[in-house]
Amino acid sequence: MHRPDELRRLVEARLGKLAFSPDLGALEEALRYSLLAGGKRIRPVLCLAAGEALGRRPDELVDAACALELVHTFSLVHDDLPALDDDDLRRGRPSAHVRFGEDVAILAGDALLTEAFRLALAYPAPDVARVLADATLGMIGGQYLDVTTNGGLDADGLAELHALKTGRLIRASVLAATAVAGLGEAEREPWAALGAELGLLFQIVDDLLDATATTEELGKTAGKDEASGKVTYVSLHGLERARALADETRARVEDRLAALPVDTTVLAELAGSIRDRRA
Amino acid sequence: MHRPDELRRLVEARLGKLAFSPDLGALEEALRYSLLAGGKRIRPVLCLAAGEALGRRPDELVDAACALELVHTFSLVHDDLPALDDDDLRRGRPSAHVRFGEDVAILAGDALLTEAFRLALAYPAPDVARVLADATLGMIGGQYLDVTTNGGLDADGLAELHALKTGRLIRASVLAATAVAGLGEAEREPWAALGAELGLLFQIVDDLLDATATTEELGKTAGKDEASGKVTYVSLHGLERARALADETRARVEDRLAALPVDTTVLAELAGSIRDRRA
Repeated sequence: MHRPDELRRLVEARLGKLAFSPDLGALEEALRYSLLAGGKRIRPVLCLAAGEALGRRPDELVDAACALELVHTFSLVHDDLPALDDDDLRRGRPSAHVRFGEDVAILAGDALLTEAFRLALAYPAPDVARVLADATLGMIGGQYLDVTTNGGLDADGLAELHALKTGRLIRASVLAATAVAGLGEAEREPWAALGAELGLLFQIVDDLLDATATTEELGKTAGKDEASGKVTYVSLHGLERARALADETRARVEDRLAALPVDTTVLAELAGSIRDRRA
Repeated sequence: MHRPDELRRLVEARLGKLAFSPDLGALEEALRYSLLAGGKRIRPVLCLAAGEALGRRPDELVDAACALELVHTFSLVHDDLPALDDDDLRRGRPSAHVRFGEDVAILAGDALLTEAFRLALAYPAPDVARVLADATLGMIGGQYLDVTTNGGLDADGLAELHALKTGRLIRASVLAATAVAGLGEAEREPWAALGAELGLLFQIVDDLLDATATTEELGKTAGKDEASGKVTYVSLHGLERARALADETRARVEDRLAALPVDTTVLAELAGSIRDRRA
């Protein structure tokens, strides 16, 4: 089994070599700008780690993994637009619309999403692409909730928003691995539950970091949630309680991992790094 | 075989009943607003007609057909945005961003595109979704050319732009039918060529209408190409020559149809209506 850092290098190598449709012409530059700006690659690494735990080689999984990162990058490019979150900084560099203009950023996001499907459709069965479509719709629904209910959420509403906006794609990272591994519907269930808990853990930590880390550490504007009056785990529960919630969620992740009939060493390491990340 | 008007009613009925992902919540209203605003439904009707010519029932084709219309509608919603073509009127009504705001329009476009893939992925084989992804990337590449080379195109450049921006999705309408019908690569070739000619015919007529029809007739802003200095078949060749080009293209469509080993009556009728349309 590969360690997370090795898996991340595999993902970076494959992302760097992705052949986009020649029909995109020079728009390709904008796709690569946003896609190859670093980033933690949590979703694709999670996909590869889940796949290896299920006995599949990384090269069998890496296209599904990259498709997840393409969808994630599409969402960042569109969410950063002035009409949405209006963020000029992403992964430590000017956002796509600052660098290329709004028109090109909108088209680049559209193209990243479509390339994600093209990549997922390289598999013989449509299963991976179906996982991707379902998760993407959830993510879009979450971003819609975010822009329309800004500031007016209670704890349940916040949980729903995050389960959609962040959770669904992280859950899909695990589900895509089960799809490639050919697991049946019932066998996927504990993996889906694990993915959902990992998504929640990621988001609570995200809220903690937005409140406590610097813009330089994050590579994106820090303190944005509070400045824009967004409801977060920190604004709703306070810093200490939010930290406790993160630890409780991590404990549930550990329980889920322990219940899986596979070697989950690497997945456990990943869960730890999601809890302890600094950016 | 069904006549075009009957096929259009089948498409409208299916579009009206599409079940979108519940995760989209109230965003669904924006999708339906843009999708159910009428429109000529040329792409889905073409898909059904090509499918029937290939011996497939409309109910076997209608999801692929609707997926094409979803992609088309996604492109209209995003292209109308202020950062792109900045058009306030579409299908006789306020554009999506005028009605719902830019943020919701961007998300609605993203969701329409993703729902298109979800629908195409309802087929057992990934073939229809692959046709859709390829065509969508071509369309996005064409829109990128349009916004970046505005005004600086010669005849070859214009032909390339239109082959991508309009042509690829119309060609895909025919190709999706061949995919559902299970045609092999070589058998699809004459259908692809037919689709490409139909796309060209559609676009030349579109340019003619933009120059000669009224905003009321079109349901979208007329005279927009000239006002924005866009190169079109009319600006490049003049009205008379553009009309002649449309007729020559229609003649090539007729030749392509005559060479196909199937009953192409309805497809010929459709080609005629594309040439003679007034909106």
